[in-house]
Amino acid sequence: MTESLSPRVQELAARVRQFVVEQIIPLESEFRADSGKHSHGPSEELRTRLVGLARSAGLVAPHLPEELGGYGLTHRETAAVFKAAGYSPLACIALNIMAPDEGNMHLLHKVATPEQQERFLRPLAAGDTRSAFLMTEPDGGAGSDPGMMATTASRDGDDWVINGRKTFITGAHGAAFGIIMARTENSATMFLADMNTPGIRIDRVLDTIDSSMPGGHGVLTLENVRVPADQILGELDEGFRYAQVRLSPARLTHCMRWWGAAERANDVAAAYATRRHAFGKPLVDHEGVGFMLADNLIDLKQSELMIDWCADVLDGGALGTTESSMAKVAVSEALFRVADRCVQILGGTGVSGDTVVEQVFREIRAFRIYDGPSEVHRWSLAKRVKRNQAYAKTLG
Amino acid sequence: MTESLSPRVQELAARVRQFVVEQIIPLESEFRADSGKHSHGPSEELRTRLVGLARSAGLVAPHLPEELGGYGLTHRETAAVFKAAGYSPLACIALNIMAPDEGNMHLLHKVATPEQQERFLRPLAAGDTRSAFLMTEPDGGAGSDPGMMATTASRDGDDWVINGRKTFITGAHGAAFGIIMARTENSATMFLADMNTPGIRIDRVLDTIDSSMPGGHGVLTLENVRVPADQILGELDEGFRYAQVRLSPARLTHCMRWWGAAERANDVAAAYATRRHAFGKPLVDHEGVGFMLADNLIDLKQSELMIDWCADVLDGGALGTTESSMAKVAVSEALFRVADRCVQILGGTGVSGDTVVEQVFREIRAFRIYDGPSEVHRWSLAKRVKRNQAYAKTLG
Amino acid sequence: MTESLSPRVQELAARVRQFVVEQIIPLESEFRADSGKHSHGPSEELRTRLVGLARSAGLVAPHLPEELGGYGLTHRETAAVFKAAGYSPLACIALNIMAPDEGNMHLLHKVATPEQQERFLRPLAAGDTRSAFLMTEPDGGAGSDPGMMATTASRDGDDWVINGRKTFITGAHGAAFGIIMARTENSATMFLADMNTPGIRIDRVLDTIDSSMPGGHGVLTLENVRVPADQILGELDEGFRYAQVRLSPARLTHCMRWWGAAERANDVAAAYATRRHAFGKPLVDHEGVGFMLADNLIDLKQSELMIDWCADVLDGGALGTTESSMAKVAVSEALFRVADRCVQILGGTGVSGDTVVEQVFREIRAFRIYDGPSEVHRWSLAKRVKRNQAYAKTLG
Amino acid sequence: MTESLSPRVQELAARVRQFVVEQIIPLESEFRADSGKHSHGPSEELRTRLVGLARSAGLVAPHLPEELGGYGLTHRETAAVFKAAGYSPLACIALNIMAPDEGNMHLLHKVATPEQQERFLRPLAAGDTRSAFLMTEPDGGAGSDPGMMATTASRDGDDWVINGRKTFITGAHGAAFGIIMARTENSATMFLADMNTPGIRIDRVLDTIDSSMPGGHGVLTLENVRVPADQILGELDEGFRYAQVRLSPARLTHCMRWWGAAERANDVAAAYATRRHAFGKPLVDHEGVGFMLADNLIDLKQSELMIDWCADVLDGGALGTTESSMAKVAVSEALFRVADRCVQILGGTGVSGDTVVEQVFREIRAFRIYDGPSEVHRWSLAKRVKRNQAYAKTLG
Repeated sequence: MTESLSPRVQELAARVRQFVVEQIIPLESEFRADSGKHSHGPSEELRTRLVGLARSAGLVAPHLPEELGGYGLTHRETAAVFKAAGYSPLACIALNIMAPDEGNMHLLHKVATPEQQERFLRPLAAGDTRSAFLMTEPDGGAGSDPGMMATTASRDGDDWVINGRKTFITGAHGAAFGIIMARTENSATMFLADMNTPGIRIDRVLDTIDSSMPGGHGVLTLENVRVPADQILGELDEGFRYAQVRLSPARLTHCMRWWGAAERANDVAAAYATRRHAFGKPLVDHEGVGFMLADNLIDLKQSELMIDWCADVLDGGALGTTESSMAKVAVSEALFRVADRCVQILGGTGVSGDTVVEQVFREIRAFRIYDGPSEVHRWSLAKRVKRNQAYAKTLG
Repeated sequence: MTESLSPRVQELAARVRQFVVEQIIPLESEFRADSGKHSHGPSEELRTRLVGLARSAGLVAPHLPEELGGYGLTHRETAAVFKAAGYSPLACIALNIMAPDEGNMHLLHKVATPEQQERFLRPLAAGDTRSAFLMTEPDGGAGSDPGMMATTASRDGDDWVINGRKTFITGAHGAAFGIIMARTENSATMFLADMNTPGIRIDRVLDTIDSSMPGGHGVLTLENVRVPADQILGELDEGFRYAQVRLSPARLTHCMRWWGAAERANDVAAAYATRRHAFGKPLVDHEGVGFMLADNLIDLKQSELMIDWCADVLDGGALGTTESSMAKVAVSEALFRVADRCVQILGGTGVSGDTVVEQVFREIRAFRIYDGPSEVHRWSLAKRVKRNQAYAKTLG
Repeated sequence: MTESLSPRVQELAARVRQFVVEQIIPLESEFRADSGKHSHGPSEELRTRLVGLARSAGLVAPHLPEELGGYGLTHRETAAVFKAAGYSPLACIALNIMAPDEGNMHLLHKVATPEQQERFLRPLAAGDTRSAFLMTEPDGGAGSDPGMMATTASRDGDDWVINGRKTFITGAHGAAFGIIMARTENSATMFLADMNTPGIRIDRVLDTIDSSMPGGHGVLTLENVRVPADQILGELDEGFRYAQVRLSPARLTHCMRWWGAAERANDVAAAYATRRHAFGKPLVDHEGVGFMLADNLIDLKQSELMIDWCADVLDGGALGTTESSMAKVAVSEALFRVADRCVQILGGTGVSGDTVVEQVFREIRAFRIYDGPSEVHRWSLAKRVKRNQAYAKTLG
Repeated sequence: MTESLSPRVQELAARVRQFVVEQIIPLESEFRADSGKHSHGPSEELRTRLVGLARSAGLVAPHLPEELGGYGLTHRETAAVFKAAGYSPLACIALNIMAPDEGNMHLLHKVATPEQQERFLRPLAAGDTRSAFLMTEPDGGAGSDPGMMATTASRDGDDWVINGRKTFITGAHGAAFGIIMARTENSATMFLADMNTPGIRIDRVLDTIDSSMPGGHGVLTLENVRVPADQILGELDEGFRYAQVRLSPARLTHCMRWWGAAERANDVAAAYATRRHAFGKPLVDHEGVGFMLADNLIDLKQSELMIDWCADVLDGGALGTTESSMAKVAVSEALFRVADRCVQILGGTGVSGDTVVEQVFREIRAFRIYDGPSEVHRWSLAKRVKRNQAYAKTLG
């Protein structure tokens, strides 16, 4: 669906694809061979090396506005570029477009003061630092239901003092700063804090099924974390609103990146099925395999269309909450089907690290949970169906 | 997805929707109450009455070129109008956009001589006559595999003499003429024939699970059917090529019409789920029901996007064989899921004729077979995956 | 799974199968050809003829105790016999084992007084009469949630006077008597009433997707229906308890009968796939078709095992509410998949009345709703999971 | 389904369950915390410790005949015990019932000479050694299609000399001996060989998605591996027949063990769903979650019934090829759905190593491939459907 894009963006997407194929994919097996050591995501050393490659190619954070070193892409244009980057999980690190950094850049650009942007956003956009988004909490706190948030911030002189626990904080380990969501008197507020602020403690990094995110996913304790008032991000008590601002685009860029990964898995599977024989003919000539590849074609196309549709909605200026919920459910479940079929087509090879397919399968399983499991999105879509009935005329 | 359409087409689609809701839907229960008598589709009397209503509203065959009384719509624009019409199965009859007539009009417009167009196409386009497309054959003949065609045409002086059997010929009963596909010396050829030509015999009309198509689906014997040479449609031995020309758009208009029907079923189900209570709350507040409605939203949106994407491909001048195969599989299966969920949500009412949902379910079950069952499309998509591998670079 | 049954029962099941194949199946096409007239199920004339055939073969109501003319079968043994009978929908009518009669016989046998049994049960068991079970109510009344029952019975001298509306009352049209469920002071009560009792009015018979049940499914008004106190079935205010007694076995016999129908559809599809060719080989040699037949094998086997397991539970004396819920969901959904695949394998023929497959598909769609849609069963299973947690030890 | 088992076996299964819960599960988190180091399965040190615990409890290889230290269980009885053991992946190691050892014990017991049994089987049965089964080969060799076997054995004096490559050889690393399948003049033959025989080289151990199998899965080169003729297992050229003997029971014990793992995952998920709240109530009270748990109940029950059914077939003396294919497909796919739902219910926790659920999900994904992917089983089931048609009478 790059046909309707400008030549400039088409050329950019093609350039990203070439970069991925020529410079990043050759590094993958080295990373995978070494993955026992990297269960918490690629090391900082590897990340720096990858970003260096993208920098040389002029491809760091390409979606950002020009003043931040990017190409000033719309959401729709971003889709073309991120799908091309997603073709290798490592490429998303190289291009500095991983979660949570990408979503944080978006939010900081929308909401942060010029001083905050200079201090936090600029080095982040340049790929010099990483960041974290501290929202989710352990049992009994804010998970799928943000209303249960237990972390609090209370005013103390010119400072705010934050206490609470956070879990599944992607990239916390190794991040330069974090955006902390905490309950304030009337609602919730976002705070910017250097990760080395006293009182921020990473209790442990979770072992998780996915392994692409630098720093992994941390469990943190916030104990009397003292943050000056000028490190409130945006306005007091506007945390939930900003979370909404961050939400839809962040969901959608997840879809874009993993779309690229699923396309990759499918390319690997199609090549394998054409090359490998069983029972007297290539696997692809067995309908049991060929039909899986046909379904992959369809699932990839439908996912692409959902992504572009939702991107258009965002480009039109809407919040896109419903549309990004629909896209998240449809795309994450379709891409998982794709990845699962690719594993199946490759047989034993599919469950081994000999190709990228096994990793893509694990990553996309996690993606079905991240940014809200399908069930939470279906729940809010059902609420919307009910609301819409207030306006609808019943036709028997 | 009407947003990107011209105001003219948006207004036309809205006019069709209004026509359907105000003039056609009120007639449905009358038709359904009577359906025992109409197991072979709506009667000619009802068809005439419906077309009359559309004629008064200026909505007969709206997709056709202006010289044939239509609005000269692109495929993409046609989608918007046909989806609106599909909201009632009867409305597709009223607008004269049903299969096989709609596909036949398309083919005649592309291929027929001016004389043939005057004689066969003009009254068809006006809704004065109906037509049939005689391709599929009983056991051992051409079904999903056109290569098995057993019907033959042999030259005899200035005439061609056709012999064979055809089955599942939609609308044959009551049609003014048919397009007959028959094997000729080097390949296959299409012939135009009045249905009252001696030797054309409708052996019986099948009882089928669907009931929306005027004339139902017939089983025919062709016994020494004599057709003058100037009733060859297009060129000798080009039958398979023309079948391809007809194929993709015909598949896609099926998707458009049944999309409208599925949207209707979903509207009925959403209204029912909001109104009806069980276990202390509206059905829609039970996630078991609400999630089905959420999935319907997603399936309808994805189907719409596939239709528009494929329509754009056709508007770009491509044959669209692969794309329409993808769309046919994805849309027919998604719409069936939608219809099935609607039945389930309505419970006992869902399996009764008290709403249109039961009929929509039956129709869309048949749609999964018509124009090629999903398996045939997956088979040809798998072949394409294999062909594409010839050009692909394998990435591990 | 007839291996563990006694020779007597194995012989009986084989005899039923032979009866079905030799005497009943030959009548099916006659019935189907005529189905336009029978949209409300087979006529009373046909039913009488069918029962006559079974009577000659000594096969009427074979599951009943010997004093009622049967063979005194356990639930497990009944499964073997009913599956054999289900091979033709007409055979279930012939053997007098259709819903709701079969469930009513069970309930009357358990609960009715000797006088009631003589008057109502004996002729029913003999196949001389039919019966109805008046429980479900239209919008706002008792459907999946029996707690919403709106029909009332109030004492008036020696009589009870019943008022209310009932819907989806299978077999009401043509039934000799009905079991009416109505709200009484403290709970609900069942009443026996001749269907010609003044005040019982069949407003209409629904058009439904299924067509196997004699009398179809009626909508009834009960207006001052006067019933003497000795026509209470069992005890006052025990209606809900009796409904439970009737429920599990009735659910399970539905599973047994439709299992037989699905096996039949599968046999038709397997034969078709072996006989019919496409693209140079028999359909069954196309994995796209062969895999569907493989999945049918598995689904049929799993359904059979669930039926036998639940029958064993009932034979052990348990109420089997949970087990029959599990069996109902699993079996109805598995058999629907089987029927759907059979339609697909047969292509155009599958959506026509030329084989029994099209009817089996429609019937089993309805079965997914009857005796509680899957969602209601899942809802009660989830409640049970929660209850069980009270006793469970959590293991991380 | 332990109800029909003898008190002796019920008591044994209960004892295993207690052993697992009290002695093995407490060790799991230690193993998981350490998993970075154990990507190739539990260490030999851990294995020895686990077997020691089972030995003290009198539970090593409980299924084996008494002369080998077991309880002489039938297949059906084995199911009860292995399901109980599967509740923890580590417990299967403790009880010495893991693949491939368990299948190798079965084969050696059936086929090996007394001398071979003394040398290879006895220490294996005691848990003192491990073994491997060298059948599968890399690209172009024997995978799902054993006919493609490329490894050869040729006679040289009193020895056989084996050359070839093997892949996905479970447990090769650390095994004392292997059963090598190689092509011989007329067919294929099995050879017993100490793993330290010159010429057997483990090129590498694969990184795989699963992590429960000691020694992981190796890639091996066999280069002039010299084996004396008395180390032929059974008869020359009978390798494929013995593979069949090993096949069905081995497939089925996989089903048993992973059934226990899925039950465990489900218990964890049910407990979590009851304890954890969102949107004002326990997760289990959200139908979106509750229905998943209901479906788990059904899938677990159906899987259990399939296992027991197939075990009965094997106990009856049949080869059970078809039945074990059906069981493998049905059970592996059902258990994967269970595991996938458990992950989903746990949300972020589900994709982390904080519970055993994440591992169970990964293991069962691999199980869908091991012992033949579903597609290979469906392929052979379809062949059987076709064969059966030769005997079947077609009924329309």
